[in-house]
Amino acid sequence: MTEILVEKPSEYRLFIGRDLKVPKPKVPLAIIYDPKVGYLAEKLAGVNNQQVMEAIPGGEESKSLAVYERLLRRLAQAGLPRDAEVWAVGGGTITDLAGFVAAGYLRGVAWRAWPTTTLAMVDAAIGGKTGVNLPEGKNLVGAFHPPRGVYADLTTLATLATNRFREGLVEAFKHGLIGGDWRLLEPWELHPQADALEPYLARAAAVKADVVSGDYQEQGERMKLNLGHTLGHALEAASNHGLSHGHAVAYGMLFAALLGRQRGGADLTEHALTLLRWTEAPSPPTASWPELAAYIGRDKKKRSDGLRWVVPYALGDLRLEEVPEDELKSAFAEWRELVAGYAG
Amino acid sequence: MTEILVEKPSEYRLFIGRDLKVPKPKVPLAIIYDPKVGYLAEKLAGVNNQQVMEAIPGGEESKSLAVYERLLRRLAQAGLPRDAEVWAVGGGTITDLAGFVAAGYLRGVAWRAWPTTTLAMVDAAIGGKTGVNLPEGKNLVGAFHPPRGVYADLTTLATLATNRFREGLVEAFKHGLIGGDWRLLEPWELHPQADALEPYLARAAAVKADVVSGDYQEQGERMKLNLGHTLGHALEAASNHGLSHGHAVAYGMLFAALLGRQRGGADLTEHALTLLRWTEAPSPPTASWPELAAYIGRDKKKRSDGLRWVVPYALGDLRLEEVPEDELKSAFAEWRELVAGYAG
Repeated sequence: MTEILVEKPSEYRLFIGRDLKVPKPKVPLAIIYDPKVGYLAEKLAGVNNQQVMEAIPGGEESKSLAVYERLLRRLAQAGLPRDAEVWAVGGGTITDLAGFVAAGYLRGVAWRAWPTTTLAMVDAAIGGKTGVNLPEGKNLVGAFHPPRGVYADLTTLATLATNRFREGLVEAFKHGLIGGDWRLLEPWELHPQADALEPYLARAAAVKADVVSGDYQEQGERMKLNLGHTLGHALEAASNHGLSHGHAVAYGMLFAALLGRQRGGADLTEHALTLLRWTEAPSPPTASWPELAAYIGRDKKKRSDGLRWVVPYALGDLRLEEVPEDELKSAFAEWRELVAGYAG
Repeated sequence: MTEILVEKPSEYRLFIGRDLKVPKPKVPLAIIYDPKVGYLAEKLAGVNNQQVMEAIPGGEESKSLAVYERLLRRLAQAGLPRDAEVWAVGGGTITDLAGFVAAGYLRGVAWRAWPTTTLAMVDAAIGGKTGVNLPEGKNLVGAFHPPRGVYADLTTLATLATNRFREGLVEAFKHGLIGGDWRLLEPWELHPQADALEPYLARAAAVKADVVSGDYQEQGERMKLNLGHTLGHALEAASNHGLSHGHAVAYGMLFAALLGRQRGGADLTEHALTLLRWTEAPSPPTASWPELAAYIGRDKKKRSDGLRWVVPYALGDLRLEEVPEDELKSAFAEWRELVAGYAG
């Protein structure tokens, strides 16, 4: 079992391992869980006899204000007090949703996360970002509300589909680039039973924990976590979310690697291509640069002071830079070419 | 013009006066306003040419997740960036709602409040509490999200009905008991044009600002602001919200005064009765003690460690105490008797 400390803005711990010890708070609990991991929720429910159990299927459709309202009303009907805890059991969509419910109920109650996907273990459940989607876009509503503890039980990964297992590690790979840890760039031998899995996930989670501890409210350093996400989000949108988040980010990192090489950085494109192959990414949407740029423009609106790209110059050397349109276009042309031939 | 500093958790200022200077941030604005004070919203809209204007009628019905969602979608459709500001113009229901929208949009954008009722000026708009109601109860969902500034423009009170003007001052009276300021206990001569209004509201607002600066997250001292609210909320619920909040709190303070006298404190009951007369409170619901205690029990559930009453022992000497059931019952019997005859 590995323990990682997240320091900011409130101190809490991440536990990564098999058959983790379950905390036993003597307060009422609301356990919000993906029915796919209902066995874990049942086990957790054994800690005391005061629970509200709510099964919510994982997936972006559940991250809505309608589901948020339904859960809040359920908690209110059960009369959950201020010192109650919300326990989230599932992938990133469940931890995002349940964490946001905890943030809003009675103006904020404590919560704990049991992430059950690789993506949630190394990324979504760490850092205190919670929220839901609007029809206008993903994650447009939310709160910074750090959990009281994160419990990544690796035994839950045994039932995760191989493609989702690998896709989640795209973010771990990204953390390798950010943290300058080459071991994270080579997940090729990993599988749910691998001994190397725990240290791998722990290293990946530690990078995220370090970054968010240093820059909780996303003013600067934390922006590096957006590596691959600017083009990635546009690709997701252009594919009408047919392309998964993990694959979209992998494609986005290839683009970022091309920008980095073009601007005089090291050549990280081979690594990004190998990642695409390993995760069996399907072809990205055929959208043109102007089409994708329009989606990126919407992202850009999130800050009035312009868009900065996260450009990898080398392992552990990422820079936030404005990039002129002609450079973006030429990197995109290269990207299209590589992507067309990547399977070969 | 009076300026009051709120120190915690982030520093901001309250401005109280006539024809206040309007800030002119160079960022897009979402102005959420009660159409009753549309003239003020129009004036504020003149500060720059980037606004989204949304008229929402004041009142508890507007404090719903449905309206919250509608506003969030409107902001998203307008592409409001992270550095946009939400401006709330109206009474406490509008500032609560708009502040909560600001708390959630893109995980939190800045907001400013233009309270236009006495209640919002001395209470609702100060302290960073924002939120909406659920069908299960008032203010069950929300966030602590302090505004960037509060602008109490007294000219807006000219169009406020006299009963609402006076009712709002019930909370100012309460702040007088908390802060030990006897001048706040005698609002009898006040009206919207009175010279004494500005210093009166400023003193009342300053008490609230002091209390919330000292205990932002409501762990202890801030609980004193609940004076009169425990029975008050029960009376509101028992009357199916036919009894207004101000009147309910005034009745609740009379009950608290009786508890204080019974427990050896000073006799503050005359003051509370005069307040009821001045605000022309209608008769409270005829609910029995067990009926009201059931409503209070629901309130109680908000903390597992039992219910503490705010008991006034003297001006400025309020104590948080558990009170045995027989004492509550005997104080309630006295309360019923006084209330039956209060108009005489």
